[in-house]
Amino acid sequence: SQSFTITVLPGDGIGPEVIEQAVNVMKVVEELEGVSFSFEYARLGGCAIDEDGTPLPQDTLEKARRSDAVLLGAVGGPKWDNNPAHLRPETGLLGIRKELGLYANLRPAFMLDCMVGVSALREEVVQGVDLMVIRELTGGLYFGEKRRYETENGEVASDELIYHEYEIERIVRRAFEVARLRSKKLTSVDKANVLESSRLWRKVVDRIAPEYPDVELRHQLVDSCAMELIRWPKQFDTVVTENMFGDILSDEASMLTGSIGMLPSASLADGNFGLYEPVHGSAPDIAGKGIANPTATILSAAMMLRYSFGLEKAANAIEQAVHNVLNSGVRTGDIASNKEEAVGTKEMADKIIAAM
Amino acid sequence: SQSFTITVLPGDGIGPEVIEQAVNVMKVVEELEGVSFSFEYARLGGCAIDEDGTPLPQDTLEKARRSDAVLLGAVGGPKWDNNPAHLRPETGLLGIRKELGLYANLRPAFMLDCMVGVSALREEVVQGVDLMVIRELTGGLYFGEKRRYETENGEVASDELIYHEYEIERIVRRAFEVARLRSKKLTSVDKANVLESSRLWRKVVDRIAPEYPDVELRHQLVDSCAMELIRWPKQFDTVVTENMFGDILSDEASMLTGSIGMLPSASLADGNFGLYEPVHGSAPDIAGKGIANPTATILSAAMMLRYSFGLEKAANAIEQAVHNVLNSGVRTGDIASNKEEAVGTKEMADKIIAAM
Ligand SMILES: CC(C)[C@H](C(=O)O)[C@@H](O)C(=O)O
Ligand SMILES: CC(C)[C@H](C(=O)O)[C@@H](O)C(=O)O
Repeated sequence: SQSFTITVLPGDGIGPEVIEQAVNVMKVVEELEGVSFSFEYARLGGCAIDEDGTPLPQDTLEKARRSDAVLLGAVGGPKWDNNPAHLRPETGLLGIRKELGLYANLRPAFMLDCMVGVSALREEVVQGVDLMVIRELTGGLYFGEKRRYETENGEVASDELIYHEYEIERIVRRAFEVARLRSKKLTSVDKANVLESSRLWRKVVDRIAPEYPDVELRHQLVDSCAMELIRWPKQFDTVVTENMFGDILSDEASMLTGSIGMLPSASLADGNFGLYEPVHGSAPDIAGKGIANPTATILSAAMMLRYSFGLEKAANAIEQAVHNVLNSGVRTGDIASNKEEAVGTKEMADKIIAAM
Repeated sequence: SQSFTITVLPGDGIGPEVIEQAVNVMKVVEELEGVSFSFEYARLGGCAIDEDGTPLPQDTLEKARRSDAVLLGAVGGPKWDNNPAHLRPETGLLGIRKELGLYANLRPAFMLDCMVGVSALREEVVQGVDLMVIRELTGGLYFGEKRRYETENGEVASDELIYHEYEIERIVRRAFEVARLRSKKLTSVDKANVLESSRLWRKVVDRIAPEYPDVELRHQLVDSCAMELIRWPKQFDTVVTENMFGDILSDEASMLTGSIGMLPSASLADGNFGLYEPVHGSAPDIAGKGIANPTATILSAAMMLRYSFGLEKAANAIEQAVHNVLNSGVRTGDIASNKEEAVGTKEMADKIIAAM
């Protein structure tokens, strides 16, 4: 039978709580599918700063490299907010992305019919929204050269938005592949009327497009995309863009659904390796209370089954179970209209497991 | 009596139509206020490419420099979309901003009670929204060094996001001044957890903040701001940010109102000089039909009266007239629920003039 090794990084805040439930769900998958998972725990973020003196310990990287996929809870918290950059939780996150070559960040944003009430947008605008933002994750402004220096007239600071052709090519191919499995509509977002990097981006997209004649391609400027996502989100299916634009647009797209506590993400390397994590943060304010919504982490585990292990059936089973539980009216506090009736982290996961 | 010289740049598409009506409104202001305006016409954008072989003719710059303010319609259109960069309309726009030192872009986004129906957001979320995005307009990625070169492994392209301390300082001061005249709440948006330029930005904001103890300051990350603008826009009053983030967030904020055909903007230099233009584009598809909404351009003229000429009373009179006309149910096609009853460009402007 198939066996997979998963590096589990609970992280900070509510991370450990939601991770625990996702692991429970994975154990059910073991039984149902006759596969076996071995879970290797390691530290990333604030907990690693406290224990190991660095947000990304060598041991964590080594475990991750030996494993088939990584499942991450969340990192960060006020405790580390005023640390210097090299001792901040997000530095660990950026580091692991770069070190493991996780260049393709897949961020689905979907609206379940039973959830339209939690969105800030009108029902007719968001009902049926189902889009996928694909963000380049290891290039651009995030990893270009940074400079900071003094002049006679004060300080200067700069960041470089730089892309190599091959970096654009691999993310764009991924995007076409993903679009092909969805509605075959791809929107490439750039700022080609201003940025040189965007002009190269658009050129590469246009060069690759003929290899995917079945996918309908559209170029859109980032400012226009930020508007159109609000005006009529259903016009979008798959969206691909560079790192910084993707950071902004994927969060904007998430919020259209009103329930970021339910949204998963995948960060993929070449081949089958990937890191999976919920879109939400470590929510220090509710950590340890057992009330965090585990759905996003459980759906991240489902993405792992699909993209890293090829267990499409098991992935669908989890997703279907989540839909059924939500359809039946079960809600955690973040998405409940009646907070009194909200269930806790464990109860939510148990319901999902029961529905599988 | 006071007299002011205004450089008028009708531009392309619907630009000339909406400009004509804004000029008509200004002529009414002349009478009502006993001031005199002299209107000097010049070319910018596509029309200048066609007539003068450049999107920003020297004559236009000279006229603008001799005048007290600039009123712009809109530039651009499919005719010039495939031109090389130096022959594109937006290059003229970027050029005039830089040449005239228009570093402070003020982008109000407000929801009139009678217009809540046109927003994609729920009534309770957008009712009463009234925010001002202040975008740095002559620095950052737009004007940093651009590079493009070949390597053995293909092409590379880069743009530099660079800020000098004094550039940050002047826009931040403007923002505090504006916030002081509004609800005294300022949100400074950056990506200080990743970008060196954002860390300098935040440092400068924190250095200046004590000079404005009456203004409540908050720092927010750009991805979080993109979400929060949708979740609960009423938490924002004045928002200040760098050029590229401002391009994206100001357009996102505009679309919250659902009626970008009504939103004006100001781009200010040191002192009283400024360029005023509607937020919408040149809308080539409806150009020449006499159906474009002139409200955004008329409200841009009102901003000119306020910020460049100090004619606060006249600015208020225009704004009040616009509100009254919209309240009475008069609508152009872009914001009409019943398109049959929509009025044209001239009729809309005439109603506004009558209401003054
Ligand atoms: C924490 C931060 C560095 C990170 C990013 O900007 O990539 C986060 O916002 C994300 O989107 O995963
Ligand atoms: C046309 C374009 C260069 C311009 C910009 O990005 O600044 C426009 O989007 C704007 O916001 O005025």
